[in-house]
Amino acid sequence: MKVTVLVGGVGGARFLQGVKAALGLPAIGPGRAGGDAGHPHQVDAVVNVGDDIWLHGLRVCPDLDTCMYTLGDGIDTGKGWGRAGETWSIREELAAYEAEPTWFGLGDRDVATHLVRTRMLRAGYPLSQVTEALCHRWQPGVRLLPASDDRVETHVVIDNPDLGPAGDEQDAPPQVAIHFQEWWIRHKAVPPAHRFASVGADTAAILPAARASIAEADVVLVAPSNPVVSIGTIVSVPGVPQALAATPAPVVGLSPIVGGRPVRGMADACLSALGVETSAEGVGRHYGGRGEGGLLDGYLVHTGDACEVPGATVREVPLLMTDTDATAGMARAAFDLAGVRVD
Amino acid sequence: MKVTVLVGGVGGARFLQGVKAALGLPAIGPGRAGGDAGHPHQVDAVVNVGDDIWLHGLRVCPDLDTCMYTLGDGIDTGKGWGRAGETWSIREELAAYEAEPTWFGLGDRDVATHLVRTRMLRAGYPLSQVTEALCHRWQPGVRLLPASDDRVETHVVIDNPDLGPAGDEQDAPPQVAIHFQEWWIRHKAVPPAHRFASVGADTAAILPAARASIAEADVVLVAPSNPVVSIGTIVSVPGVPQALAATPAPVVGLSPIVGGRPVRGMADACLSALGVETSAEGVGRHYGGRGEGGLLDGYLVHTGDACEVPGATVREVPLLMTDTDATAGMARAAFDLAGVRVD
Repeated sequence: MKVTVLVGGVGGARFLQGVKAALGLPAIGPGRAGGDAGHPHQVDAVVNVGDDIWLHGLRVCPDLDTCMYTLGDGIDTGKGWGRAGETWSIREELAAYEAEPTWFGLGDRDVATHLVRTRMLRAGYPLSQVTEALCHRWQPGVRLLPASDDRVETHVVIDNPDLGPAGDEQDAPPQVAIHFQEWWIRHKAVPPAHRFASVGADTAAILPAARASIAEADVVLVAPSNPVVSIGTIVSVPGVPQALAATPAPVVGLSPIVGGRPVRGMADACLSALGVETSAEGVGRHYGGRGEGGLLDGYLVHTGDACEVPGATVREVPLLMTDTDATAGMARAAFDLAGVRVD
Repeated sequence: MKVTVLVGGVGGARFLQGVKAALGLPAIGPGRAGGDAGHPHQVDAVVNVGDDIWLHGLRVCPDLDTCMYTLGDGIDTGKGWGRAGETWSIREELAAYEAEPTWFGLGDRDVATHLVRTRMLRAGYPLSQVTEALCHRWQPGVRLLPASDDRVETHVVIDNPDLGPAGDEQDAPPQVAIHFQEWWIRHKAVPPAHRFASVGADTAAILPAARASIAEADVVLVAPSNPVVSIGTIVSVPGVPQALAATPAPVVGLSPIVGGRPVRGMADACLSALGVETSAEGVGRHYGGRGEGGLLDGYLVHTGDACEVPGATVREVPLLMTDTDATAGMARAAFDLAGVRVD
């Protein structure tokens, strides 16, 4: 069976482990007996690139790396992101040089990944090929496909933090757009987001392999990732909504909101910028039913979060990724709702 | 007093400590009471850039960094190069990625320096300004001037190591030129060097500040560094021999060869490529006396290495940099031979 999953970072990576387990693949590693042809199932991940950022001359791709490290057994399992056994000499040194930005700490092991990536990008390889080369080491057992080889970076429009209380400094713009990472990590999503901009999305194109993966899938899943800055950014890439609308495969989403709260992260701060209620129903209606021109044929919400999404079938199941078994159960429920069978 | 010193890496950095001590400056750190104007003495170092190399997309400047770390109290004093308290996560990771070259191990702390440097270079700043910015942190108390802002890289012509014993592989060139670092570190200077090439030297130019420093110096010293790939490469930069010939300051060199052997490193492997005997006299005659169109007015050799260098005054003194006091004694002997007085 061919499964294509739209994913962001930590939640997406963990959900991919569950999808693999539901297909009888090990949650970590390649787990293919006889090479690529040795297993009847294939999992592709279409990964958000909106969080990608240049830091200290290095191209950093947080969501791709979180998926790669998680599935390749290199993740710091406690934090859910970054490398296991990480060291922090570079962070210390860059601070001593007062090198900006100081609000994003790069781990030493992680930097090695960025060095390999940046060198290949500068040599002209597209991000998708660079990711494939990095995965040659990590063997995630999932094809990690950046949603686009083009730059699509999420920026956030906030009130200019340099404005005083009076707000009347000369020549200072009332609002500024900052990189998502700066809003998320430096400002902890506290300054209200007026809106999000996918910088580059207007001229970007869906990765051809991602388009093909969506077209040829037996089922497409939308992971319980941030509906705005992960899934929303993927869907902002020209060609993605078209591919999702055209695929013969059923599309099933999983709610990242449980009991009115994000399971992880600060999705509420993102949703409120869009005027979307932080609830399973709010997210479901934001995605929309495919019967009504939206994304989803089916929508899984957590037990007790029953709701209606016009044009989609909603089903309640436990949606907490407490361990691989629980997560595999979520994937199985999604397959079931989609009407596909794992042989 | 203004002292300008031509230097390479480890030996040059240690000699600079002695020069500072001989002038009453602390061997480490800025040691200036009232800012730049607070001390009557100024030490400038014209530093070899021939060892500089791109590694994993980073610009690495071994001699500049060795001087900076040594004088800025960041050096691994045991090895003489690299950072104190270094960690090696990146080296481990790059090996796991099988990222070439694998024969040059970059320390994590050191990488931070290269990140700051590379980012500034890519932004268009010349190496001299980048070095000044890095020294803002390290406060070496010596102005570190790259011999040139242009690329001047030492390459070494050796027999093609890919040729079999028969030497008749089709299309394989009989000789190849490799970067000095590859010859020195990967091959440990074992394959005989046929010759050295300063790649870029033909179109490079002396750093204007280095030219001015040599012109305005009260004395110019040639550190006991590698006479071929450190001092020789500096002198290969157009404008350097002219500046040395034109300066009214006396020029005094110190022999890096003691008792027929290099004190450190593999200078013999470099000298033999030039047909120069590995002896104090061999190096002295290679530099040449200024009276005969060469570099030196004066030449210090180790006690027992007395020799004649036509056109230069030779004097015997102890030349082992066993500690800062001994090294300061060498610098004082050089001042004395030059006829300059430290007040």
